[in-house]
Amino acid sequence: MRQILVIGLGAGDPDYVTMQAVDALNAAEVFFVVDKGEDKSSLLELREQICDRYIRDDGYRLVTIPEPPRDRRAAAYVGAVDDWHERRAELFEAAILHHLPEDGCGAFLVWGDPALYDSTLRIIDHILARGAVDFDYRVIPGITAVQALAARHRLPLNRIGEPVHITTGRRLAAGLPEDLDSAVVMLDAGFAAADLNDPDLHVYWGAYLGTPNEVLRSGPLPEVADEIAATKRELRERHGWIMDTYLVRRERRERP
Amino acid sequence: MRQILVIGLGAGDPDYVTMQAVDALNAAEVFFVVDKGEDKSSLLELREQICDRYIRDDGYRLVTIPEPPRDRRAAAYVGAVDDWHERRAELFEAAILHHLPEDGCGAFLVWGDPALYDSTLRIIDHILARGAVDFDYRVIPGITAVQALAARHRLPLNRIGEPVHITTGRRLAAGLPEDLDSAVVMLDAGFAAADLNDPDLHVYWGAYLGTPNEVLRSGPLPEVADEIAATKRELRERHGWIMDTYLVRRERRERP
Ligand SMILES: C[S@@+](CC[C@H](N)C(=O)[O-])C[C@H]1O[C@@H](n2cnc3c(N)ncnc32)[C@H](O)[C@@H]1O
Ligand SMILES: C[S@@+](CC[C@H](N)C(=O)[O-])C[C@H]1O[C@@H](n2cnc3c(N)ncnc32)[C@H](O)[C@@H]1O
Repeated sequence: MRQILVIGLGAGDPDYVTMQAVDALNAAEVFFVVDKGEDKSSLLELREQICDRYIRDDGYRLVTIPEPPRDRRAAAYVGAVDDWHERRAELFEAAILHHLPEDGCGAFLVWGDPALYDSTLRIIDHILARGAVDFDYRVIPGITAVQALAARHRLPLNRIGEPVHITTGRRLAAGLPEDLDSAVVMLDAGFAAADLNDPDLHVYWGAYLGTPNEVLRSGPLPEVADEIAATKRELRERHGWIMDTYLVRRERRERP
Repeated sequence: MRQILVIGLGAGDPDYVTMQAVDALNAAEVFFVVDKGEDKSSLLELREQICDRYIRDDGYRLVTIPEPPRDRRAAAYVGAVDDWHERRAELFEAAILHHLPEDGCGAFLVWGDPALYDSTLRIIDHILARGAVDFDYRVIPGITAVQALAARHRLPLNRIGEPVHITTGRRLAAGLPEDLDSAVVMLDAGFAAADLNDPDLHVYWGAYLGTPNEVLRSGPLPEVADEIAATKRELRERHGWIMDTYLVRRERRERP
């Protein structure tokens, strides 16, 4: 039976790699790599550094899977994303069938943790549902951007006894959810927090976390929002791409 | 200047340790260890395994810090938790002053990630606010129980474009928050999900994740709730303690 390992590499710093990931990297003979085009060079670089540093025997093969074009206008709809996953599943399936021997071990390398805003596990469900290729698979967790953010700002993610809420820029634009005093925001093309208009919010922001380009900012949201938005535009211009994550949190209100 | 490292060890499996944590373990000369009494032997064992396996030079010292008694009746109140943190801060402060040389490097070892439902970072804030000892400190992220749960069930934590919500058993008892289709539950003494009474919920449960005692269960909540609650009582009896985490998720409702 074919075996697939879905390996979380951590979100930026090669030192975030776990021992389990190192073992998994060394168990795989074929690495399937999705080619997202030139702007996503960060994962390519991290992957190269990690493979160079941690794989002991360089007899492995790299198989590149092209990324099908995505209908961005329809991106808000679950249906459109599902179609896209189905097309990706076909390409993954073909790559597995052609490049992984029947008793071989292959790996997908994932930025951060495969469980958090990543499509690999969903694509694997699609492949298995199609039924053309069978395999067993395992998931190796990795340090997420959320944890990198918290560590670099030396922040607890939760207040005592309170929840941790991780959401997207799109959702934050509709405001902090009722009853919640804080949220971690990912996948924000702009800086949705700037529009929240809540004088009690504090923000802890990080871009390129764990990488040599890391930038951190924090402060009362009304005071730092413009600067963060400007910094973000500038950094995106300078590097050609950006990945950033932030926590917004209401100043503590005393409770009985 | 003294240096303190707050090192996340991962939540159960010694292979969850990151390269950054291994380097940090090897940089520290004194390990401060909180003694929580015999029932918390899991962290003790994990810590021993990890130190044995990854620390190259065994010239380090272990300093045990006693855990002050906690007023459990008042545990719901932030004020009571704060008092308790203050008493812990005094004990941590004394340990640092007496056992860490002025230019020394000490470490606190944390189960999982220091940012998630752990008091170490809050205690450090208390110590620094007291002003009797000064030090620089860094945080090393670790794989959380949430990630271990997702990896072992091979689950994405989020639906496409939707949030990830991590909460406590106490809060889940009040129901799934409005507008949310899923939640990860930690710190649940019983099995609060059993009372949710929602026929559309699915549950993915894991106890002692990443350890040799790991137990996984999943299924439609109404069908498996009683079995999970019974298994939990049984396991707690057998091992003398239990740590479990679960995800509850509403079956997908199609959207436009
Ligand atoms: C498609 S998601 C992938 C998340 C990843 N699986 C993880 O576990 O962190 C991409 C988003 O993650 C966040 N992100 C990932 N790496 C980051 C980094 N090094 N610094 C800041 N944000 C990062 C950004 O919010 C970005 O929009
Ligand atoms: C005080 S919190 C510490 C969380 C930890 N800092 C982390 O990052 O996972 C303890 C709770 O974590 C969860 N937990 C920790 N380790 C676990 C494990 N190995 N298996 C299942 N649940 C675990 C349980 O919900 C437990 O009540």
